[in-house]
Amino acid sequence: MHTIEQLTLLLEQRIKETGLPKEPTNLYAPIEYTLESGGKRIRPLMVVVASEMYSDNIDSAIYAALAVEVFHNFTLLHDDIMDNAEVRRARATVHKKWSANIAILSGDATVIHSYNLIAKCCVENFYDVINTFNTLATLVCEGQQYDMDFESRDDVTIDEYINMISLKTSALVAGSLKLGAQVAGAPKEDCDALYEFGVNLGNAFQIQDDLLDTYGNAATFGKRIGGDITEGKKTFLLLTALDKCSPKQKIELQEILASATFSEQERIDKVTAIYNDLSIKSFTEKKIDEYFTKASDILAKLNIDSAKKEVMYKLADLLINRNK
Amino acid sequence: MHTIEQLTLLLEQRIKETGLPKEPTNLYAPIEYTLESGGKRIRPLMVVVASEMYSDNIDSAIYAALAVEVFHNFTLLHDDIMDNAEVRRARATVHKKWSANIAILSGDATVIHSYNLIAKCCVENFYDVINTFNTLATLVCEGQQYDMDFESRDDVTIDEYINMISLKTSALVAGSLKLGAQVAGAPKEDCDALYEFGVNLGNAFQIQDDLLDTYGNAATFGKRIGGDITEGKKTFLLLTALDKCSPKQKIELQEILASATFSEQERIDKVTAIYNDLSIKSFTEKKIDEYFTKASDILAKLNIDSAKKEVMYKLADLLINRNK
Repeated sequence: MHTIEQLTLLLEQRIKETGLPKEPTNLYAPIEYTLESGGKRIRPLMVVVASEMYSDNIDSAIYAALAVEVFHNFTLLHDDIMDNAEVRRARATVHKKWSANIAILSGDATVIHSYNLIAKCCVENFYDVINTFNTLATLVCEGQQYDMDFESRDDVTIDEYINMISLKTSALVAGSLKLGAQVAGAPKEDCDALYEFGVNLGNAFQIQDDLLDTYGNAATFGKRIGGDITEGKKTFLLLTALDKCSPKQKIELQEILASATFSEQERIDKVTAIYNDLSIKSFTEKKIDEYFTKASDILAKLNIDSAKKEVMYKLADLLINRNK
Repeated sequence: MHTIEQLTLLLEQRIKETGLPKEPTNLYAPIEYTLESGGKRIRPLMVVVASEMYSDNIDSAIYAALAVEVFHNFTLLHDDIMDNAEVRRARATVHKKWSANIAILSGDATVIHSYNLIAKCCVENFYDVINTFNTLATLVCEGQQYDMDFESRDDVTIDEYINMISLKTSALVAGSLKLGAQVAGAPKEDCDALYEFGVNLGNAFQIQDDLLDTYGNAATFGKRIGGDITEGKKTFLLLTALDKCSPKQKIELQEILASATFSEQERIDKVTAIYNDLSIKSFTEKKIDEYFTKASDILAKLNIDSAKKEVMYKLADLLINRNK
């Protein structure tokens, strides 16, 4: 069993050796650019750590991990076009640095490359592996569509929001864990349990991301604090506030979000004040704990060596405690 | 062995039963819309006809055929955004009917769906099958990138053009044939020969498409005659004309294409006049024949029943003689 640090180094090395052709440059350079720009590689780590819980041979797990990481980068590449985002990981997004057309097409080549990688998993149960990969890929697209649909709706419920993040964010975390277990030949119940662990962990992570967007530390969060508020994003915080507030506060909240007269900072301050008034922070923290505890309970019940679980706990912590 | 008409009916039926979820509507309705709008289904027919040359069981071939058709529709969906095309098969394109963002994301879900379908091929050599599918998918993206790159270049050679169409158009035809042979368990030499047959056939088809764009019959071609000329597209005709013309004609040709003073029809007429002067039509027809003959020769050499080859010849004819 490797440590997370060892696996991170190994993955970084393997991500560098993409094996992608050089030509046509406008197709492949944006993919290299996207892959090299990093992140914590948590999802591919999930694959390999899950795999090592069941097998010492991680050859196939590495390919599944790379497939997941490449797929994740594909979603970022296309999401950035859809959101018209200018910056990603402190660098210009592909559609800004090149063009929207190049970002669409190199994104397409990226998702196809992820299938090239998953097809390198040389395992007996390859049909299970590709089905898991197809499922996670489909669910992530569904989640992204719901997220886009929410932009033009003002009746989104908290349940709908949880369903959306379970698809957009958690399906990839959960699918990564299941893939890792599958390529290692883990029993079906364990694959399914790790999937459930991942859904809960992913939900905790996404709700925490919402929380940090308003209450995080600007220096470590990496994005501007309050961005979700200025964009009027339907986050767990906003939907909970709308659910808990008085009719008077609701009107006030909607007016602040719709108003064109406030500056961005004023809007952030006013909405945050309402959140404070409604104890949204502690309510959200409780929800995160709830999902995290559910996840931990599932992991605790797994019938495997506790030393092996320990690495997975650490990885879960790394996902949840990021930027705190 | 089925006839092409029987297989077409069978495929249409199976394409209708997409098995796609209904929700989120904005993700799946554009996919249904794209798939139902038809075309001649030549590529999926290639898969099944190739398969029937080697096996009576076409269960897996049907899934590979659907995968190819769904993949083809994915490329159209995204190409239409990149080309800013308004109409496809006499209906509004997805990005015009819905939005660019919806077209990007539903395109993504479409390519993932094509992998769902290919993963339903239940065959011993599934790794070969998915590798063929991955390869054709990658090559099509490369071809599309070269095609986009050509727009801003004025030194594109005929060889580069042939390479581009071999990727963008022929890799899908060739890959379809190889997939069909592979799922039927055909010998490797036959799979490779059918691939080569497909590359030549695909090239003949694409060059004919270029020819019909200028010299076709408006009533049967389905697109406006002369569109390639007004867009200044680097077609086989234009590149051949630039290659064969005198230095004086070259300047004239470039001036016509660059000029903003001519109407679209004037530009079409003037460029066509130069093409006529240089006998581009007959030169292009000769090139099409050359590729078609190469394809036929490869098929002739295959060591299989001539009745089985007959259906494949008919299908090749259907591809090449379309809209004549």
